[in-house]
Amino acid sequence: MQYELHYWPGIQGRGEFVRLALEYAGAAYVDVARTDEAHGGGEEALMRAMRRPELRHPPFAPPWLKAGELLIGQTANILLFLGRRHDLAPQEEAGELWAHQLQLTLADFLVEIHDVHHPIGVGLYYEEQIEEAKRRAQDFRKHRVPKFLGYFETVLTRNGAGFLVGSRCTYADLSLFQIVAGLRYAMPKCMHAAERRVPGVVALHDRIASEPRIAAYLASPRRIAFNQEGIFRHYPELDGP
Amino acid sequence: MQYELHYWPGIQGRGEFVRLALEYAGAAYVDVARTDEAHGGGEEALMRAMRRPELRHPPFAPPWLKAGELLIGQTANILLFLGRRHDLAPQEEAGELWAHQLQLTLADFLVEIHDVHHPIGVGLYYEEQIEEAKRRAQDFRKHRVPKFLGYFETVLTRNGAGFLVGSRCTYADLSLFQIVAGLRYAMPKCMHAAERRVPGVVALHDRIASEPRIAAYLASPRRIAFNQEGIFRHYPELDGP
Repeated sequence: MQYELHYWPGIQGRGEFVRLALEYAGAAYVDVARTDEAHGGGEEALMRAMRRPELRHPPFAPPWLKAGELLIGQTANILLFLGRRHDLAPQEEAGELWAHQLQLTLADFLVEIHDVHHPIGVGLYYEEQIEEAKRRAQDFRKHRVPKFLGYFETVLTRNGAGFLVGSRCTYADLSLFQIVAGLRYAMPKCMHAAERRVPGVVALHDRIASEPRIAAYLASPRRIAFNQEGIFRHYPELDGP
Repeated sequence: MQYELHYWPGIQGRGEFVRLALEYAGAAYVDVARTDEAHGGGEEALMRAMRRPELRHPPFAPPWLKAGELLIGQTANILLFLGRRHDLAPQEEAGELWAHQLQLTLADFLVEIHDVHHPIGVGLYYEEQIEEAKRRAQDFRKHRVPKFLGYFETVLTRNGAGFLVGSRCTYADLSLFQIVAGLRYAMPKCMHAAERRVPGVVALHDRIASEPRIAAYLASPRRIAFNQEGIFRHYPELDGP
């Protein structure tokens, strides 16, 4: 079976956490909105697909994954599903819940990362909320980055096996890799200072980046470059040590 | 087995979504931080418990649930677990994932509800970000409340059975009840206008409120009153039609 991933075609965004899991698993998938229009590609088709009145389980927003008859929305929920199918998380209950708990904490961090440049409203341009963004960025860099990265450093230290959960890579490790990569793009000065305190997180990032399938993916045209439309955006005025 | 819920003792907050599920299921639990200090009650003991260095699966923040040997954090993750144990969600995969997807969307809504009064930083007082809060509240009332409530109205309409998922109450229904109740407290003018467009959501709220175990809970001292320390806060300057 070939999965269909449905997500905005021009950004990594939340879809990237799903792409990384699919790529690491070596799963067959089509990134539908990135195909040409004859194959359902483009943003307009994505929006139309989401709003089809016959959908019994309509998603609130992209991404969603079509897996045969199943249509699954919400990034962490998609990863829960893929974790079971592709052994990207422990199969026993305690381990499955723990991996999911970490993913939900990464999702919380991601919302905060996004809201640094959109503290007032997602429907407004950055330029309309730049003063508020500067203020939020200060608080984010000083308090939130150390708190979240420090938490994952603690989890890595207590697990002691170089991964967040057990002795193998899970979707949560792939997602933490993506958060580190994204923050390095968005806030290089902040990360330069923050990374010194979280050597385990940095080592995990490097380990994931060198996994053969991930390395091949990152070097391929399937990996969209970070850009100023995504969740991770580099606005120099929001960065700092 | 008696569950232990660990959450801030003075607010409904995220813990309330867990309390509602436990109460609806008729499950035995202790709300640990609300007991006296001799039994581990109080905020200081809660913080100490979270930071115990021997925890293999440390939570990032309250709430967490202790279920025998299991320690589960992240509200939606706790509900995923309770849904299985107490039949608060479909047992088959498609239904389980769909209920969880809705819960994660409610969690996204809840973050936005919180950030209306804390748009700059969770560590700052409301009074330090009141101007930004006013601006965010305008956007929230105009765009986000109709979008989220309208989405759940659509889900209810398409399901057609008076509940979000299938023909029985799930933890997602209990959580939507709580969101409606909380928004009515926080933004009565906004909700007065918004509710006219979502009769199914309003009917669901009323149905859940009159479920015998929920009605008994809401009338009991176990239900903490809404207050200005929680996620839902009534600041008149943030409300409006």
